[in-house]
Amino acid sequence: MTTDPLVVFTPSGKRGRFPVGTPVLTAARQLGVDLDSVCGGRGICSKCQITPGYGEFSKHGVTVAADALSEWNAVEARYDEKRGLKPGRRLGCQARIMGDVVIDVPPESQVHKQVVRKAASARVIAMDPATRLYFVEVDEPDMHEPSGDFERLARALKREWGVAGARADLSLLSKLQPVLRKAKFQVTVALHRGHEEDAAQVLDIWPGLHEGGLYGLAIDLGSTTIAAHLTDLETGEVRASAGIMNPQIRFGEDLMSRVSYAMMNPGGDREMTTAVREAINTLAGEIAAEAGIDPVLIVETVFVCNPVMHHLLLGIDPVELGQAPFALATSRSLTLGAKELDLSAINPRAQVYILPCIAGHVGADCAAVVLSEEPGKSDDLALIVDVGTNAEILLGDKTRVLACSSPTGPAFEGAQISSGQRAAPGAIEAIRIDPVTKEPRFRVIGCDKWSDEEGFADDVGPGGITGICGSGIIEAVAELRLAGLLDESGLIGSAEATGTARMIAEGRTHAYLIHDGGAGGGPRITVTQGDIRAIQLAKSALYAGARLLMDARGVDRVDRVVLAGAFGAHISPLHAMVLGMIPDVPLEKVTSAGNAAGTGARIALCNVGARREIERVVGEITKVETAIEPKFQEHFVAANAIPHKIDPFPELNKIVSLPNVSFNTGGETGGRRRRRG
Amino acid sequence: MTTDPLVVFTPSGKRGRFPVGTPVLTAARQLGVDLDSVCGGRGICSKCQITPGYGEFSKHGVTVAADALSEWNAVEARYDEKRGLKPGRRLGCQARIMGDVVIDVPPESQVHKQVVRKAASARVIAMDPATRLYFVEVDEPDMHEPSGDFERLARALKREWGVAGARADLSLLSKLQPVLRKAKFQVTVALHRGHEEDAAQVLDIWPGLHEGGLYGLAIDLGSTTIAAHLTDLETGEVRASAGIMNPQIRFGEDLMSRVSYAMMNPGGDREMTTAVREAINTLAGEIAAEAGIDPVLIVETVFVCNPVMHHLLLGIDPVELGQAPFALATSRSLTLGAKELDLSAINPRAQVYILPCIAGHVGADCAAVVLSEEPGKSDDLALIVDVGTNAEILLGDKTRVLACSSPTGPAFEGAQISSGQRAAPGAIEAIRIDPVTKEPRFRVIGCDKWSDEEGFADDVGPGGITGICGSGIIEAVAELRLAGLLDESGLIGSAEATGTARMIAEGRTHAYLIHDGGAGGGPRITVTQGDIRAIQLAKSALYAGARLLMDARGVDRVDRVVLAGAFGAHISPLHAMVLGMIPDVPLEKVTSAGNAAGTGARIALCNVGARREIERVVGEITKVETAIEPKFQEHFVAANAIPHKIDPFPELNKIVSLPNVSFNTGGETGGRRRRRG
Repeated sequence: MTTDPLVVFTPSGKRGRFPVGTPVLTAARQLGVDLDSVCGGRGICSKCQITPGYGEFSKHGVTVAADALSEWNAVEARYDEKRGLKPGRRLGCQARIMGDVVIDVPPESQVHKQVVRKAASARVIAMDPATRLYFVEVDEPDMHEPSGDFERLARALKREWGVAGARADLSLLSKLQPVLRKAKFQVTVALHRGHEEDAAQVLDIWPGLHEGGLYGLAIDLGSTTIAAHLTDLETGEVRASAGIMNPQIRFGEDLMSRVSYAMMNPGGDREMTTAVREAINTLAGEIAAEAGIDPVLIVETVFVCNPVMHHLLLGIDPVELGQAPFALATSRSLTLGAKELDLSAINPRAQVYILPCIAGHVGADCAAVVLSEEPGKSDDLALIVDVGTNAEILLGDKTRVLACSSPTGPAFEGAQISSGQRAAPGAIEAIRIDPVTKEPRFRVIGCDKWSDEEGFADDVGPGGITGICGSGIIEAVAELRLAGLLDESGLIGSAEATGTARMIAEGRTHAYLIHDGGAGGGPRITVTQGDIRAIQLAKSALYAGARLLMDARGVDRVDRVVLAGAFGAHISPLHAMVLGMIPDVPLEKVTSAGNAAGTGARIALCNVGARREIERVVGEITKVETAIEPKFQEHFVAANAIPHKIDPFPELNKIVSLPNVSFNTGGETGGRRRRRG
Repeated sequence: MTTDPLVVFTPSGKRGRFPVGTPVLTAARQLGVDLDSVCGGRGICSKCQITPGYGEFSKHGVTVAADALSEWNAVEARYDEKRGLKPGRRLGCQARIMGDVVIDVPPESQVHKQVVRKAASARVIAMDPATRLYFVEVDEPDMHEPSGDFERLARALKREWGVAGARADLSLLSKLQPVLRKAKFQVTVALHRGHEEDAAQVLDIWPGLHEGGLYGLAIDLGSTTIAAHLTDLETGEVRASAGIMNPQIRFGEDLMSRVSYAMMNPGGDREMTTAVREAINTLAGEIAAEAGIDPVLIVETVFVCNPVMHHLLLGIDPVELGQAPFALATSRSLTLGAKELDLSAINPRAQVYILPCIAGHVGADCAAVVLSEEPGKSDDLALIVDVGTNAEILLGDKTRVLACSSPTGPAFEGAQISSGQRAAPGAIEAIRIDPVTKEPRFRVIGCDKWSDEEGFADDVGPGGITGICGSGIIEAVAELRLAGLLDESGLIGSAEATGTARMIAEGRTHAYLIHDGGAGGGPRITVTQGDIRAIQLAKSALYAGARLLMDARGVDRVDRVVLAGAFGAHISPLHAMVLGMIPDVPLEKVTSAGNAAGTGARIALCNVGARREIERVVGEITKVETAIEPKFQEHFVAANAIPHKIDPFPELNKIVSLPNVSFNTGGETGGRRRRRG
């Protein structure tokens, strides 16, 4: 009696004995090894590539003979000739087991590939998308067994892939018959498996083996900007990223003015819904064109957004979100057809997933930040701040997570700022002011040099310096304070009081001139008293929200701060702390998570299990409502000073010493609130 | 220790003991007694009316005291004053059990009411519609529990009615918030419970208790006509019936010419789809207007139709149905949203159910006939013939059911007949020809008298006699044969040969003049040689199909024949047998089922369990394909004679003796096939 050969798969370590002649793919499937295949072992998709190891493998205790696998066959030779196989690679469906063998499954052959994000966080996304490709051979029609073509397709999916209960909508059924006949009943389908039901939905069908890939869009639908990542649903790779302005801005810059627009104008909500859906279609078309991808291959879309954008996207009047008790029409996650949202630029049968909302003011965008940053898995107490027109704020650790949102307004994004603009080439994104000379130097998006470095003027390019973006204005205000040009109450000093001609009188207030492009026809970029007041309002709201969560948690210190948001990566932690945007922590404990909401959207796009997870986690979050909490107003007022006076800032004081100046001569009228230092 | 009172419900006989003070409705629910309630026991819907029995009830062994129920209360008094309660009735939710009692649940208070069809068949429909009304009290929104309004509605449905997993589409979500607030969170919802999934779908919502009812449409979508029954989903009552011509007739009278149209004209299938959907909308609007019902209350629609109409309704090119192997794009039952079929005339969230198809030529209409006539439950061998442009034929008993369809063409419906017309006022529907005088007498739709009765001319009305409909032409041909004016081969005799001036020469053939309205400006109504040939083709196809099933079953006799079809009720069994449409059986064994397909549609509309049943039964039917079976052509040719010569007609010969005449002088050219007697 002979023993069957032993097969060991790496990296999983799964092992078993199989009869001589068993295909490697068959052995992998029987052992539950994560080895991909779209064509089901027909030697045409090449997804099941493996690398046999020869020689001694002490780790696995297997000695592998050179003839442990069957010889290179005609199918592999043809594939190698046509597309090329890496040296040492075999096709798992063709190579058969002849003796003891160790077989490595390279990462790209794994179904559940690990995708490492480029951002700072080490979080990886395991690929397990809701929609995958399946190649099937459908039984041909037979008058003596008069089932429909779709029923035979569903039967093939069950037989070959174990997928039960496949369904399709009428538009798929209407294209089914010609495709089946063109392809002699061998087709590839894109199959969407909902995470809540057993039902599987056939989203599209291609003749033969479809090799064009499948794509998804992760869309961060913000009040001011809409950002999308076009993601390869097989590899997780981001193929293109793009953003456009939210056209709803013309109905109101911030969320509450849009809610008011809907209240004041019958049909106004519908106008805003149409505008945002059109913008998403434009964005989808552009991003597909940029990546050179047929938009019909975009079969999934994940949205994250705040509750007002959520309702306006869905076509629901957001009026209830504008008044207590801020009732959402629906809070749970939604899986919809693209058609229901008029998303005509992508596959007509594409599936849309929208993350759950946490509360009437804490939306799916915040849920996405939770999914990305996982505060509920943190050992230390983390404050996560997602900076945008509305700031989402999370505070938590393993014991408990709290969430709120705070209406910061668009100042942090460069809007409502006199020289403000979006973060785009030409925008000042960083600035330093010499405390002695009071002269500025700055860096502009699209140019690596600082303005005082040689060649800066040449490098800035033809567009020149056009304005100041969110991170630039934050740094500017903090630098003005550090340079003694701004007092604790937020008042800008005069040229006389500060001794620098950069101070320009503007009525009864003053402005600081950063850059005068007037000679070359360019703009004069200044920071005005109004800009300071706008930033003060924004940062007070942000800080008050964070403080409210700290109160609810019963703490007055946090262990670490994570800055998230589309431009969170660009905010200088030191400057944020000088400004008093965030509570006092050691500087090295302030990290950037980049666009965490967008990352959360990408995670939900690539991994259907993450959808289940966030739906569960959202139910466990403690929601704190800022709008009705009297303490919020208190914190808001108290947080107005630069830096505010709520906590003693021991950590900040270790790094910088803030000049003790006061410009308040009773002359300023621009501010909404004034504090006397 | 006292014993709790005994409660016995009739007619169910369910009994149990309940504490004094238990509401009758509560007791009924605990015992599983079929007692309706929409408002959940709040005393506002009055669906739970019951009749307590007083006195001795030997049958149930209970002696009921006069105070066995609590006294008439204010809620009941108010209801009685406003709407009136029948004498002896109580509201089950208000009346409380005080002593032993027998309580009768009248039929109209039962959820699963039995609806007796008006037609001959004794089949009853048990009401169990997919969509029902539920009154709920929704929790008001609360900032400390920030769930969405819809989630709280779903929770109320679970809590008050045990309905889990309620869902809603975006259009419902967008109207939810104002309705909830207008109604102080007390609403009635129409909830559709699919028969395949646990999921329940909220189709509509009304403030407070909705008392406007819920309706459904049962639509028999034929090649020539579209018929609809507007049905009350609570009582099963048909509130209105209406029909219109299928506008696809302009693309081809029969199914195969429509398939050809789709093949020859790019986009032709789409044109036909649009046409039929528009017609259905028109019909739905008309029928709602006729019944005086808001079309938005139509929340369900069931379709039965042949496979070509099925595909054209769904927007699927029927081209594959025009050629072997006649593959359906999909054969199983479908549950769709009305919007998917552009049915804009009814509730936008109405659910459409389409019965399964049996095979490429045997459609959902035939499945509906199976549901209505239940051949699989028959003790004797039944032949069921659904006469239409395409005839569906079923043969079966408890052991096995076989099905086929046969392309009879529209002649039986009065189309392609020289004086033919639809069954409408003015059409000759019955005719007798005196075998001696050869003179006709006839009856016209809309008039009860025969044409030779006194006052007929006055009663026929202003429209006069306009043509001859399907049942009329069948009788005319058979009567011509019985009167010796037509020979066995189907040739009409000349005036000379028959000795009657009613015979008019038309070229080389002859026609029989039934009615000459020429003097009054009306039409001349004749039966031409061409008409005879058209009827011969149709009846040969019908008989050949039946015979094919008999061959497959291995029999040459059937026990009984059921004539179904929109005009099946009007066909004279004797004349059908003289014509040779159906096999020879004792005359009393030929019954009419009326519009059995339409009845099947109504059953599926009123009872969700019937949908499950027909889906199961359809899988067990043996499908016989007429188009590729050489025996079909053989039978078709052999069945051409009047009556045909395939079987010896012992039963028919007991009743009539057919004249032995022959007019074949070699002069006729109009026939496609000629047989020499």
